[in-house]
Amino acid sequence: MSRSQSLNLKSGQVDLTHGGGGRAMAQLIDQLFIKHFDNDLLNRRNDQALFNVPAGRLAISTDGHVISPLFFPGGDIGSLAVHGTLNDVAMSGAKPLYLAAAFILEEGLPLADLERIVASMAAAANKAGVPIVTGDTKVVERGKADGVFITTTGVGLVPDGVEISGDRAAAGCAVLLSGSIGDHGVSIMASRENLQFETSIVSDSAALHGMVADLVAAAPNAIRCLRDPTRGGLAAVLNELAGQSGVGIVIDEARIPVKAQVKAACEILGLDPLYVANEGKLVCICDADAAETLLAAMRRHPLGGDAAIIGEVVADPHRFVQMTTAFGGRRIVDWPVGEQLPRIC
Amino acid sequence: MSRSQSLNLKSGQVDLTHGGGGRAMAQLIDQLFIKHFDNDLLNRRNDQALFNVPAGRLAISTDGHVISPLFFPGGDIGSLAVHGTLNDVAMSGAKPLYLAAAFILEEGLPLADLERIVASMAAAANKAGVPIVTGDTKVVERGKADGVFITTTGVGLVPDGVEISGDRAAAGCAVLLSGSIGDHGVSIMASRENLQFETSIVSDSAALHGMVADLVAAAPNAIRCLRDPTRGGLAAVLNELAGQSGVGIVIDEARIPVKAQVKAACEILGLDPLYVANEGKLVCICDADAAETLLAAMRRHPLGGDAAIIGEVVADPHRFVQMTTAFGGRRIVDWPVGEQLPRIC
Repeated sequence: MSRSQSLNLKSGQVDLTHGGGGRAMAQLIDQLFIKHFDNDLLNRRNDQALFNVPAGRLAISTDGHVISPLFFPGGDIGSLAVHGTLNDVAMSGAKPLYLAAAFILEEGLPLADLERIVASMAAAANKAGVPIVTGDTKVVERGKADGVFITTTGVGLVPDGVEISGDRAAAGCAVLLSGSIGDHGVSIMASRENLQFETSIVSDSAALHGMVADLVAAAPNAIRCLRDPTRGGLAAVLNELAGQSGVGIVIDEARIPVKAQVKAACEILGLDPLYVANEGKLVCICDADAAETLLAAMRRHPLGGDAAIIGEVVADPHRFVQMTTAFGGRRIVDWPVGEQLPRIC
Repeated sequence: MSRSQSLNLKSGQVDLTHGGGGRAMAQLIDQLFIKHFDNDLLNRRNDQALFNVPAGRLAISTDGHVISPLFFPGGDIGSLAVHGTLNDVAMSGAKPLYLAAAFILEEGLPLADLERIVASMAAAANKAGVPIVTGDTKVVERGKADGVFITTTGVGLVPDGVEISGDRAAAGCAVLLSGSIGDHGVSIMASRENLQFETSIVSDSAALHGMVADLVAAAPNAIRCLRDPTRGGLAAVLNELAGQSGVGIVIDEARIPVKAQVKAACEILGLDPLYVANEGKLVCICDADAAETLLAAMRRHPLGGDAAIIGEVVADPHRFVQMTTAFGGRRIVDWPVGEQLPRIC
């Protein structure tokens, strides 16, 4: 459009016209979203994207992202919004194909912050090999949101023969964890202005579909459940899986990888690492005879160097998650109650 | 879970624990979302849903919904969130298959309001025959959102041979409109507390994929562009299509259906109906020789009784949308500038 002006990406702010469906919104789409996300499907500028699929099973997952602060050590809301949804798609065993992104912006958000976030999303999507092919932008008045919320939705293709679901754990299965826990939640706590303390902890936010593809290649029929321990941490995910499958789970505290500085920070903050969110880890429940094969596949992957077999599935009508402690006792790892860390993802 | 309590759906409120990944969130999912959305895919309680597709073309679309007020004549944010995304999927010619829904809730939202919204979504999805198969819930602190925002994402299957895209309009094509304009926007304005005036106008919020299926059946190869004139109204959509296709469009004011009470309300409010949002109308650009066939198909559909051929596509390097006025003159229908009606969808 010859009559359109440029967005002021240096010192401009989001205003209500950017969500109004008119010229300002078209500028925002052209000069910010299409500029960074740049791909053939998005560039057609329709209200939907079309893509070809082979006959088969697709996975779809959606996640809203409301993390505060928007920028944190190891990432930002943009990269997190890509990783979070890619991981939820991948936890079915699927290879993610495409992403959609819906932005809810607060009036007054600096356009420079929005561009930094969008560029970060684009980089994360490019690195993952999964384009953002359609989207939406809404703007609400100052004080009616908190900077920016991003909801991403992903679709992926599940390989034939793979049957991964939270209700497939059975007594005797092994429980694997792909790496150390608590990094994301502690890094967010550390970056919140009222909780600044010395730490080198960065979020583990990362896309796990590459690791999942390696696991599926290593033992496609042996993987029963995959889930990423985000909100509520490892404790929530193990309780979810035990509940869905109608089994108990026993884990061994000594085998759960926790970085020394995360452990120290948790002690200072009064947090239990079992309940702290992660954004680049997965739990895998598998047939016991494939556990070593899958552990080796995890450890070969750059994100799985600290992977461990942390426990096993047992018969238990109470569906309890229990932990053998470092002192030899056993305690129940209950569902998270209350909310230690709001706005963590 | 024997130890879980019931949600207090009568007088309870959303609090931060409902987004925390623990027991309260599991209760919210079980006792509210799964209760109302109830379908086999959702009920598996995984973080993604799997479904089978034939080989072919899929459409994906996503839309955030931030409408204020949450409840309005003719609908609410729940039904709107279903219709809005179904329509964006359908505007590719696709038959919608599945929906995903991501909720961002403000602490303090009455659970009774949330249940009313979720029940309304479920009713709209059931009526449309498109289940909500996966979802997500986040909660932010009081004052960091505005009650509830809902982002829905839909996938659909595009019939073979259908090629509908905003860049396919060509000189000589006819421009059809499926019914009267302005109803949604005016009903929202009327329901906002500071603009209460006597009116019987209700939102036209409705799912259009049934009408689209009828159009595709009537003349599958003749439909060039479909788009629903939501934010920015008919004026924005015609300018978008003219811009994408590199053509001009000339419409005839006398042929554009506007209800008398909508016209009157627009005069009082200083609004131009061309720029007011709709949520149950579509614009169809088609080969001229199929225009009467498609018009007849629209009019046979319950949502298309007032459909009309409102203009034609012309060659125009400036990509102008022009309107022949009731007085015989011709004026440019420009892009919306500024924002008359924030939070309209």
